[in-house]
Amino acid sequence: MSPRTFTQVGTRPIRHDGVDKVTGRANYGADFTLPGMLHGAVLRSPYAHARIVSIDTTAAEAAPGVKAVITGADIPETNAKLMLGEGAIDLHDVGDNLLAHGKALYNGHAVAAVAAVTADAARSAAALIKVVYEVLEPVLSVDRAMAADAPILHDNMATKGQPGANGPSNLASRMELKRGDLTRGFADADVVVEREFRTATVHQGYIEPHACVARYGEDGRAIVWCSTQGPFAVRDQCAAILSMDPANIKVIPSEIGGGFGGKIVVYLEPLAIMLSRKAQRPVKMVMTRDEVFRATGPTSGTKIRMKIGAKKDGTIVAADGSLYYEAGAYRGSPAGAGMMCALAPYRIPNFLIEAFDIVVNKPKVAAYRAPGSPMASFAVESVLDEIARQLKTDPIDLRLKNAASEGDLAPYGPPYGPIGLKDILEAARKHPHWTSPLGKNQGRGIACGFWFNAGMNSSASVTLNMDGSAAVVTGNPDIGGTRVAQALMVAEELGIPVERVRPGVADTDSSGFTDVTGGSRVCYATGMAVIKAAEDVREQLKARAATIWKVDPSAVGWEDGRATPPAGTEKAEPLSVADLAAKLSHTGGPIIGRASLYAPMAGPAFGAHICDLEVDPETGRSRVVRYTAFQDVGKAVHPSFVEGQIQGGVAQGIGWALNEEYVYDRNGIMENAGFLDYRMPVASDLPMIETVVLEVANPLHPYGVRGVGEVPIVPPLAAVANAMRDATGLRFTELPLSPPRVLAALEREHEPVGAGTGAGQGGRR
Amino acid sequence: MSPRTFTQVGTRPIRHDGVDKVTGRANYGADFTLPGMLHGAVLRSPYAHARIVSIDTTAAEAAPGVKAVITGADIPETNAKLMLGEGAIDLHDVGDNLLAHGKALYNGHAVAAVAAVTADAARSAAALIKVVYEVLEPVLSVDRAMAADAPILHDNMATKGQPGANGPSNLASRMELKRGDLTRGFADADVVVEREFRTATVHQGYIEPHACVARYGEDGRAIVWCSTQGPFAVRDQCAAILSMDPANIKVIPSEIGGGFGGKIVVYLEPLAIMLSRKAQRPVKMVMTRDEVFRATGPTSGTKIRMKIGAKKDGTIVAADGSLYYEAGAYRGSPAGAGMMCALAPYRIPNFLIEAFDIVVNKPKVAAYRAPGSPMASFAVESVLDEIARQLKTDPIDLRLKNAASEGDLAPYGPPYGPIGLKDILEAARKHPHWTSPLGKNQGRGIACGFWFNAGMNSSASVTLNMDGSAAVVTGNPDIGGTRVAQALMVAEELGIPVERVRPGVADTDSSGFTDVTGGSRVCYATGMAVIKAAEDVREQLKARAATIWKVDPSAVGWEDGRATPPAGTEKAEPLSVADLAAKLSHTGGPIIGRASLYAPMAGPAFGAHICDLEVDPETGRSRVVRYTAFQDVGKAVHPSFVEGQIQGGVAQGIGWALNEEYVYDRNGIMENAGFLDYRMPVASDLPMIETVVLEVANPLHPYGVRGVGEVPIVPPLAAVANAMRDATGLRFTELPLSPPRVLAALEREHEPVGAGTGAGQGGRR
Repeated sequence: MSPRTFTQVGTRPIRHDGVDKVTGRANYGADFTLPGMLHGAVLRSPYAHARIVSIDTTAAEAAPGVKAVITGADIPETNAKLMLGEGAIDLHDVGDNLLAHGKALYNGHAVAAVAAVTADAARSAAALIKVVYEVLEPVLSVDRAMAADAPILHDNMATKGQPGANGPSNLASRMELKRGDLTRGFADADVVVEREFRTATVHQGYIEPHACVARYGEDGRAIVWCSTQGPFAVRDQCAAILSMDPANIKVIPSEIGGGFGGKIVVYLEPLAIMLSRKAQRPVKMVMTRDEVFRATGPTSGTKIRMKIGAKKDGTIVAADGSLYYEAGAYRGSPAGAGMMCALAPYRIPNFLIEAFDIVVNKPKVAAYRAPGSPMASFAVESVLDEIARQLKTDPIDLRLKNAASEGDLAPYGPPYGPIGLKDILEAARKHPHWTSPLGKNQGRGIACGFWFNAGMNSSASVTLNMDGSAAVVTGNPDIGGTRVAQALMVAEELGIPVERVRPGVADTDSSGFTDVTGGSRVCYATGMAVIKAAEDVREQLKARAATIWKVDPSAVGWEDGRATPPAGTEKAEPLSVADLAAKLSHTGGPIIGRASLYAPMAGPAFGAHICDLEVDPETGRSRVVRYTAFQDVGKAVHPSFVEGQIQGGVAQGIGWALNEEYVYDRNGIMENAGFLDYRMPVASDLPMIETVVLEVANPLHPYGVRGVGEVPIVPPLAAVANAMRDATGLRFTELPLSPPRVLAALEREHEPVGAGTGAGQGGRR
Repeated sequence: MSPRTFTQVGTRPIRHDGVDKVTGRANYGADFTLPGMLHGAVLRSPYAHARIVSIDTTAAEAAPGVKAVITGADIPETNAKLMLGEGAIDLHDVGDNLLAHGKALYNGHAVAAVAAVTADAARSAAALIKVVYEVLEPVLSVDRAMAADAPILHDNMATKGQPGANGPSNLASRMELKRGDLTRGFADADVVVEREFRTATVHQGYIEPHACVARYGEDGRAIVWCSTQGPFAVRDQCAAILSMDPANIKVIPSEIGGGFGGKIVVYLEPLAIMLSRKAQRPVKMVMTRDEVFRATGPTSGTKIRMKIGAKKDGTIVAADGSLYYEAGAYRGSPAGAGMMCALAPYRIPNFLIEAFDIVVNKPKVAAYRAPGSPMASFAVESVLDEIARQLKTDPIDLRLKNAASEGDLAPYGPPYGPIGLKDILEAARKHPHWTSPLGKNQGRGIACGFWFNAGMNSSASVTLNMDGSAAVVTGNPDIGGTRVAQALMVAEELGIPVERVRPGVADTDSSGFTDVTGGSRVCYATGMAVIKAAEDVREQLKARAATIWKVDPSAVGWEDGRATPPAGTEKAEPLSVADLAAKLSHTGGPIIGRASLYAPMAGPAFGAHICDLEVDPETGRSRVVRYTAFQDVGKAVHPSFVEGQIQGGVAQGIGWALNEEYVYDRNGIMENAGFLDYRMPVASDLPMIETVVLEVANPLHPYGVRGVGEVPIVPPLAAVANAMRDATGLRFTELPLSPPRVLAALEREHEPVGAGTGAGQGGRR
């Protein structure tokens, strides 16, 4: 692909939705109000594992202002599956998660819901519902879940992927990826490092709680306003769960205050529809933060064993890993993705990675930014750090020696196309950060990370106004600045200023089918649809120019945002979009451009991060003092939002590494379901995250775009842990590196903090 | 055009929006609410004609809860024009009508507006605004307006179309249409009838008052939710008046509770945007019914002189008419349209129709269903009734003898294509109603009517869901059932059930540019776009089938809603839309169909109505006892809504004929601004309106659709008056035929009611 010169792509205009957001004017899920609207509340299980003996809703139904009460009995049980993107959703589990049927499977599991004239009335009435529980022993770890005497969550669940597995088990499935000969591989190794790692259950931590309003009519048609990453996904899930026709549901997405994968599966929308159906009034439902923590998200807590062998020259010869991922209450952890991502940055001739999907009495996990990859990467990159130390080689050199490049087979199968992993490692090695001196109690770590990125279904429409301005709509809620990116694409293709393009997110009736905002796919796949839709407009404009000039449309050219006449056409000057737009009514009417596509593949993304960490030996508190993220983004359509995505991913990864965790008591009751006790990093906790954006064009996209948003959360876990090792001399294998854990380890070692204090690994070079 | 067989077009499914409307669940203009929303109120002139000496808003601004106050000084004066549909809107006048600048030109003219935290606070504060007026003599009739000593409304307005006219005048323009030699024509006549007619100012009477919510951001971008016939028209008017870029305004149309032409020009939306801009909060504005009457609508009061000559055999040889139409406070009555429609049903070799557009101190008139035609038709059809009486010929025969048909030149120029006027007159003559006996105090009248219908700009998008259902959206708010008609078109083209098509009205970002819902154009022009968009989907489906069958797309056929393989293709069975939809992701992704067009012409519509009226000689109260409307609709896509449109137009025409009128006191203050005193017919006032729908296909539309909604309001004025003549022997030339007027006339005549009582004109035949 010859390099294309852009006039607008790559610039940094103010995002169209920016002012409304910073002034608090943008409307989110809880901001919708309808006449006659009721408010819903959910009664949730106080137990982590309990059989529901009976539910008596009589008192709640009689309470003042109550218009409807529903329980699991109102959701028909089904064994159907729903294709969502490239995966199948088990509707039985989604339905059971929405409202428990026979068992409460985690603390916070919804048991009943109430709609009443005020939110207070609904909450008060929910508290009047009498549920008799038979409390069972909770299963809170993969170890306990797989023990022979473990309580079983699902009596009818057998293990997939394990021949001969019959009886009920908490192991939902076993998967494996292998290549070469593991025994011979390790035999070739001069150094072998094996460690066991653990990561905690963490939440996506989006600022906006789940919220929706639903209106159901006697004709069986419903409208849902909600905060979601996928209006079509909400529509299709609601339809499938409630046995409705998707054509009878319209989903209108609000602005979205973060999702990170956690706003794809439905939690409230079907309940709101059912309550509205029963009450014959619109129903609003808004979660509290406590509910968000107890009943949505999170991502898997994991146990990972990782063994890697290398030769003296640094060549990795074998890897052997076991990934145990908590699925939460229902099957479906991202263990499989973790398995595919773990070794993806490297050429390794012999490997076996097995992955286990294990149910426990915690909320069913939801996708979280590069789902499954960060934990696997934490294990692999920590082991590689140890290998570099044992070989006394530079950890970047070690990675560069083994880095995958074009033509290498990905561990999960296909050969890579052009990828920028080596470029970013070279850039990291040359960057001043890598060789800058470290201060007292400081250490430096590096880690790489990988994410597939996704394609899937996307649609876009571009309409032209008579004044030459344009509008573009897609079905993707804008989380990371995709609207301004799409406006830039239209501006680029049509040669009009980006401020004259109004980008929008349409409802499910007004947009072609589009898969969720996720998988780092929007700027890539939906972006391609936007470019094609703008091209469709341009081709129609050329045809209009042909009409005006009375020439053949195929003879009309396009240069610098103007239609150009074929040579020799009399009285024909080039016509701009504005010129042609003004004549639309006289040349055939308005113009709509449209495009839709299924992108089966995407351009893989790699990142390499350098982290400097300072540890307070008195308290165990650590602080990231410098952080530089290198990433191959393919093409940065709007560099500010590319940088912002990288910074956001890093911030979340640092939180995961240092502080975040679900704290459960012995009964499986979450003890820190709020932002005061669940410690996410805030701006004052972090330095400015530096970003180095490289552009190795992805040949699958006309501009070279890869997708940006997910991979930056992958390296931080290991980058931080490796920096901790460098600062303290201690290899931590369990996250988070919270002050109590670090302090305890320091005290256990009876050593002064940081064997290499002030002269960390990076600094030694 | 060979007759096409339809499988779904012509059936009567329940409209998709029907249940929400009858259950009160549909959301109209006043039903939107935003967080932090303020409420607006408008201060209106208590005088019909007054110079504004000063406005002091100090007290209002200091009132509790007030966040913004605006006056005419906030709207920049402009001389710009805005093309809207096929006409230009004078933005100076629209702006001055929104908030008076130097003069209040009618009772109810907006002078200032306030936004406050509650509607009460806004109204109270508006009352605190001190306006000093210099009261002027009001001009309340075309006669007074054109008198030499008349007060002048606009000091800078000269007469258009009148050579030599200089000085300021209340006559805004004079137009004429002529053909042949008037003198020779009348010389050939055996009978000449000349009468002068008057019609009152009447309002469109939509049930839903004007309402909107506007949100303006510091970035200069605005969103407007409102009840309108044209979201793009609202957007473009607001942009032009407020000097904003149309790309910076998004208009989201609500459901609309009637418009009839009166919800095209903006009254509130720019005020709400300005108040929101000033207050930095969203602002809701909702009119009271009093405001709707005093400050929106109405249509022209008129004076019309009409002289028609015919030979003994009924051949009309000449017509000479003068149409004086009130424009209200600003130029722009539908006198020109009345001039073009007056004689349109007939072949008349010699005619001169002149039309006068005259400003008076009443609200500026707005379009009202077939704007201008009903009054002109009232005059022509009343005179023809007299001629039939004088010639002792059947009034249907008289009309049939002169009825225009294909190839005849319309009075306004072009030759007619295929039209159904003769067919409907034949149908009326044969209909049992025409020869049924009349009761005591009853009479029968007949009248014809004409409307152009309109084409203009339309766009449509059709999206296909993976389950084979579809959605169609356009930019036309649905007033008369156009959504279900569009769903039928998509269902017809794709061969899927109409219930599986979800029709919607999109906002201005999510729909291609589309002219207003008006001119009976939606089912015709936007319908064509819908059909083309569905065809676009079908062609893409055929290409997908070709992919599956590995054949050339051009070889794929389409039969009975299924793609069919070329003969000899192995293992290829026809594929339905559902079959192909299920495979979309594997054959190239989702499908959007789109089409946009400019329809320069439309199929003219004609109606003929028979009215039986019973008059109470004691009170003068009359009652329509039977009414049959015959109309050539081209093609009835959904016959129930075609019939409904005809019934609605007739009901409004009967109200206009019998009861409706603006009652002014001598100072120009409206005395009956409410539905209790402004008497519109309600269901209990009317018999079931019978309809006879004929279908003479319009060759401009693929199904033959003409457009239905407007012409049925044209004949009732004369049909009722002719029935009154038949019942009472009295020729009324002034509307409405309200009980006091009828009683006075009856008493003046000192005759028993109805010379032909019980044996009216119809009954005599």
